[in-house]
Amino acid sequence: MDVEKLLSEMSLEEKASLCSGADFWHTKSIERLDIPNVMVSDGPHGLRKQADETDHLGLSESVKAVCFPAASALACSFDTNLINTIGEALGDECQAESVSTLLGPGVNMKRSPLCGRNFEYYSEDPYLAGKLAASLVKGIQSKGIGTSVKHFAVNNQEYRRMSISAVADERTLREIYLAAFETIVKEANPTTLMCSYNRINGVYSCENDWLLNKVLRDEWGFEGLVMTDWGAMNDRVAALKAGLDLEMPGCRGIRDKEIVEAVQSGELSEEVLNTAARRVLNLVKHYYDNRKENAVYDKEAHHALARRAAAESAVLLKNDSILPLEPKAKVAFIGKFAKVPRYQGGGSSHINSFKITSALDAVKDITEVTYAQGYDTKEDKVDEAMLKEAIKAAAQAEVAVIFAGLPDAFESEGYDRTHMELPECQNHLIKEIAKVQKNIVVILHNGSPVRMPWLNDIKGLLTVYLGGQAVGGACVDLLYGRVNPSGKLAETYPLSLKHNPSYLNFPGTEKEVVYSEGVFIGYRYYDARDLEVLYPFGYGLSYTDFEYSDLKVTPDSNLKDTDTITVTLKVKNTGKVTGKETVQLYIHDKEASVQRPEKELKGFAKAELAPGEEKEVSFTLDSRSFAYYSKELGDWYVETGDFTVMIGKSSRDIVLTRDISVTGTKTIPFVADCTTTVGDIMKYVKNAQELMQKYGGELTPSLPADDDGSLGEGTAEMMRQMMAGTPLHSIISFGGEFTSKDIQNIIDSLNSQN
Amino acid sequence: MDVEKLLSEMSLEEKASLCSGADFWHTKSIERLDIPNVMVSDGPHGLRKQADETDHLGLSESVKAVCFPAASALACSFDTNLINTIGEALGDECQAESVSTLLGPGVNMKRSPLCGRNFEYYSEDPYLAGKLAASLVKGIQSKGIGTSVKHFAVNNQEYRRMSISAVADERTLREIYLAAFETIVKEANPTTLMCSYNRINGVYSCENDWLLNKVLRDEWGFEGLVMTDWGAMNDRVAALKAGLDLEMPGCRGIRDKEIVEAVQSGELSEEVLNTAARRVLNLVKHYYDNRKENAVYDKEAHHALARRAAAESAVLLKNDSILPLEPKAKVAFIGKFAKVPRYQGGGSSHINSFKITSALDAVKDITEVTYAQGYDTKEDKVDEAMLKEAIKAAAQAEVAVIFAGLPDAFESEGYDRTHMELPECQNHLIKEIAKVQKNIVVILHNGSPVRMPWLNDIKGLLTVYLGGQAVGGACVDLLYGRVNPSGKLAETYPLSLKHNPSYLNFPGTEKEVVYSEGVFIGYRYYDARDLEVLYPFGYGLSYTDFEYSDLKVTPDSNLKDTDTITVTLKVKNTGKVTGKETVQLYIHDKEASVQRPEKELKGFAKAELAPGEEKEVSFTLDSRSFAYYSKELGDWYVETGDFTVMIGKSSRDIVLTRDISVTGTKTIPFVADCTTTVGDIMKYVKNAQELMQKYGGELTPSLPADDDGSLGEGTAEMMRQMMAGTPLHSIISFGGEFTSKDIQNIIDSLNSQN
Repeated sequence: MDVEKLLSEMSLEEKASLCSGADFWHTKSIERLDIPNVMVSDGPHGLRKQADETDHLGLSESVKAVCFPAASALACSFDTNLINTIGEALGDECQAESVSTLLGPGVNMKRSPLCGRNFEYYSEDPYLAGKLAASLVKGIQSKGIGTSVKHFAVNNQEYRRMSISAVADERTLREIYLAAFETIVKEANPTTLMCSYNRINGVYSCENDWLLNKVLRDEWGFEGLVMTDWGAMNDRVAALKAGLDLEMPGCRGIRDKEIVEAVQSGELSEEVLNTAARRVLNLVKHYYDNRKENAVYDKEAHHALARRAAAESAVLLKNDSILPLEPKAKVAFIGKFAKVPRYQGGGSSHINSFKITSALDAVKDITEVTYAQGYDTKEDKVDEAMLKEAIKAAAQAEVAVIFAGLPDAFESEGYDRTHMELPECQNHLIKEIAKVQKNIVVILHNGSPVRMPWLNDIKGLLTVYLGGQAVGGACVDLLYGRVNPSGKLAETYPLSLKHNPSYLNFPGTEKEVVYSEGVFIGYRYYDARDLEVLYPFGYGLSYTDFEYSDLKVTPDSNLKDTDTITVTLKVKNTGKVTGKETVQLYIHDKEASVQRPEKELKGFAKAELAPGEEKEVSFTLDSRSFAYYSKELGDWYVETGDFTVMIGKSSRDIVLTRDISVTGTKTIPFVADCTTTVGDIMKYVKNAQELMQKYGGELTPSLPADDDGSLGEGTAEMMRQMMAGTPLHSIISFGGEFTSKDIQNIIDSLNSQN
Repeated sequence: MDVEKLLSEMSLEEKASLCSGADFWHTKSIERLDIPNVMVSDGPHGLRKQADETDHLGLSESVKAVCFPAASALACSFDTNLINTIGEALGDECQAESVSTLLGPGVNMKRSPLCGRNFEYYSEDPYLAGKLAASLVKGIQSKGIGTSVKHFAVNNQEYRRMSISAVADERTLREIYLAAFETIVKEANPTTLMCSYNRINGVYSCENDWLLNKVLRDEWGFEGLVMTDWGAMNDRVAALKAGLDLEMPGCRGIRDKEIVEAVQSGELSEEVLNTAARRVLNLVKHYYDNRKENAVYDKEAHHALARRAAAESAVLLKNDSILPLEPKAKVAFIGKFAKVPRYQGGGSSHINSFKITSALDAVKDITEVTYAQGYDTKEDKVDEAMLKEAIKAAAQAEVAVIFAGLPDAFESEGYDRTHMELPECQNHLIKEIAKVQKNIVVILHNGSPVRMPWLNDIKGLLTVYLGGQAVGGACVDLLYGRVNPSGKLAETYPLSLKHNPSYLNFPGTEKEVVYSEGVFIGYRYYDARDLEVLYPFGYGLSYTDFEYSDLKVTPDSNLKDTDTITVTLKVKNTGKVTGKETVQLYIHDKEASVQRPEKELKGFAKAELAPGEEKEVSFTLDSRSFAYYSKELGDWYVETGDFTVMIGKSSRDIVLTRDISVTGTKTIPFVADCTTTVGDIMKYVKNAQELMQKYGGELTPSLPADDDGSLGEGTAEMMRQMMAGTPLHSIISFGGEFTSKDIQNIIDSLNSQN
């Protein structure tokens, strides 16, 4: 396919036609020029290909495929290799099903536990989300299949997601809500991005020139295609100008016509249309250039991978010497999810799994257990018969393993949760069982944190999030110690929903949701606010223990923000079984001129260690590790000063630290205006005194002869601070020979020095 | 004085000259027309008149006067009568000293414990601040003296107060930061307001047409004069247009000339200048019309009033059966503040007291105590000799009363605190004394909350805030039970500074401070966030006990927001001594379409009761008691629904409640735009279906035939919510016969119905 030649042969109408889909899942073909269409399909943790006639909302049953753990689960693996492998598997499935592009991964931030779609997202931390999702993109794209990183951007809730305006300052956007996308674009070169439905600071993402042209393309160097989320298009011509190439699912030609008319009237440059059409053609070319005819994939191998991934992603949150279980122990599995696991969320990511392994199935390979359903998920109502049966089973066992979690209806695309509760029938069940059985392990199936009022009544707690179709196998592997738990939480479990940073601003009003917590999302907030949490970000237990030592920073002095810094330490398995440990590196800025989080994740590494084994773990830091986004500079900025390198087992279990000094090499320009104070001039302007004298005055009007203390013992400090805080215009009131014109001349003169 | 006649005779230059001060404390006179000047003087809790030649910053020693308790103390009295009486006394002092206007009260909100000037402000609650300060204004003005309510507005910190922009949404401004001013303007008709230094949402207060012309004058009906804070003027012509009449302290004619030039060039209408000059003349006329020649005042009587006020304002925070003291008890007074009380803050409110009563002086009327200084205030350093002496005195006594608190240098106008700590030397002293003496009472002198690491080591805690020149007498009155403590906190004492709502946004950057906590200031935040506090808003103990009963609401049904509602209850003194109780009324909105505080103070009443006595307490509620400010409506809005009337001993000790239904009579208009959703139309538009059909489509595209559950058990709810959230423009993507033009026609049609 010669894209430029085709483009030159296309009519205006043909080019416009490429800018919207033919139907729910296909781009348009142009038969006259032998341009084929390509198919895209929902993901991201499996392939949801609607093969036959699709309904007009694209939500009916899809072809059988493999459902891997959802992003909320995978994120807890902290394992880029694992996620890359899953990406490869997904790429193989797409090749086999003739799908050009898998619509994912989703890397919106878990701003509130209530977001209905949290299960599809990675983390409350953009560094972690970016690194992990980049691995998925690399894996999928290594198979010649495209990805569509979504939802770009600031789509962190379902409530009014198609129209609400996310209001956030630029620093917050850059540091938190755009950062994961930036990492993926720069490191994994995704073929496409999917633009979010919502508005950002009043402007629809799909019409957001700043977002798509300036940040994504000009700054980050993205060369791929941007498509709408399904049905997100508002003003087609504005969107095209803003850099939005492909409208999905389509518009029956209605908006294609608007494009043609806009070019004909001169409102829209044809070059802009050419650029969009070129990107669509490149997408088609990419698929056919990389297509593997007659590809097949090994479903069972993928199922086994899904099981391994689920086990690597589970997080052991509590273990009062109850896990792992002995095969000979008399165990009761209780709860419907033991038999019918909840392993994925509802909506566009809902996979038609070719096979589902429940814990009850999997445990048969190891031992016999008893089972009682305990509750149903259709409605939140205590079933007395089921309850009674469950209590009996629990009482007769040595250990009760309760499979609990959120039913489908409790978290889904399309609507947010309104609370953090589990179904009351499940809470009741656990409380009742605790009355007859002290040895309780709860396995939690959840896309986001839940409140656990029975936590003090149980001995073991393992969350598998939404662990994919083989989750039941993973549960058994973990329960019986075939796999040693190694997941760490990718988000904080707060003590109360009311402590969540977004609590008073989620999900917002009918028109907007204000991100007033700024950069303080997740652990950044709980740290800064000195709030106790239930389980901190990065937390997770193991069946073994690890010791950290020998933290080294190289080079260890005269560091500049242009240097690449290596951090190493040793990790040793001091326990009795092999295990994996995720070492976390956080950076703390000891003093900053803006409010910064107490710590921010800037590195993580997962190491497998046999008992007694010690390994060196290494991290690389660069300027971004120390920077914040300065709106004044319009860039990332490292402020010269001291930083602490923190090495932790979790965000609240920092075990090694090292202070380093870093010198920043960029300077924020000083701009004078009507708010510039005497103190600013003394601080930022070298020849301050000369400058002011030039205009016939003195910089500081004379003070009272001495601090006579007539206004209290603080008078001297008060005078000093008041003077520093005096803006230029106020000097007129307190003496000197300035006029308003002089003040303006000084301001102009200060700015001309820059 | 015939103001209109004088105005008609004045030249342009003469009129302009009236728009700035002659010197620090006087308006300009115009001899040609026999227009005298008037003097204004700092306050607000005393008269700081600089009689002689003033320094050019107006901060040197003033004439002797009476220093009453600062606003931070008086607020705890919850006593409008007391504060009115103090206002009368201040008015008398001004008459005697020929001062036309006392520059106060200050009713900025105590947003952060760190604001250096908190001691001059009333509360974290605008209702309380407004009602109490209105009483002060009424008292002062009843004597023919003017007031200048300050600092208008949103000046809640000292850091860069002269230039920083306070960024807050309109609802926050209306409900919190303007509300106290509104109450005072409407209820007490102050002669002047003092405009703050800072900017509000980017515009200097002094140049803020919205603030001064629209809100203050057009909406609230203010007819007085607005002057600048001292040195706040930036752009004189812009300020005049915005409604800023008088620039203080003056400008040596520099800006008067700018006014003249602007009128001559046509940039400024002379009518605008006339209005400002007229207001200055009215101020002069008001003073001379009400002047009492040869007035004198009784300094000793005012001193006695100051003592009574300090006692009524003190708050007993802890009392483990240690207070009141028996006169025969062997007591040691420890701490410099027992001998040299800290009774006022530093800066423009610093009064040159004619007399100061220390606790050590006052206690002599009752008994003998021993005394040890314990610490010094010049620097925060442990003096081992003083410490040793204090420990010895404490050990030899039966009770140690430690006079602690913030020294002058720890809180002052001009700079903010950076922490909530007391001097370490004082904390150390108390800790050391606790090792030898179990019976400790701490008396705290503070303008704002402090951290008290020794709180568990003491038995009694009494804060007198900054209690004025007779505070020592009040301390003795309270310690020995001559006065029963009745103060209640006008602000929350948080467990940690990091819990404070403004913590991550105080004091802001060099350019702006964002009020991202919105309306959730003080207890509104701690309640909403479910945070424990050290001492809640409204909290305070007594030497007796009170019981509440018989809560009645009249009328008790069919309430509309236009009704006046009466709430009554009975309060009984069930203890053994006479005491005063402040009953607090809060309103809770049970369900609101915007985020509202859990409760808001809407009434308070203080009753004095002899042992066994019972009284009825009554409150009046009106629409404002239930309303929030709706930006969409541009007005206060009562949303129809259920509210709870809460009667409490503090904001966290609600003892009686009553649910009522209130019907709102205003309607927020529905405005359609490109974000309007199908759900909005179904909710707000009566003939929704007809309207949509007119344009050839159906309101809702057809759904998949049934909820087949293929996307999980939540599919039905997901579909319903997704449909409701679909904006009109998205319908094109999902079917129907709409075009973009149809969508716009529907929007236009919806809006034309309003």
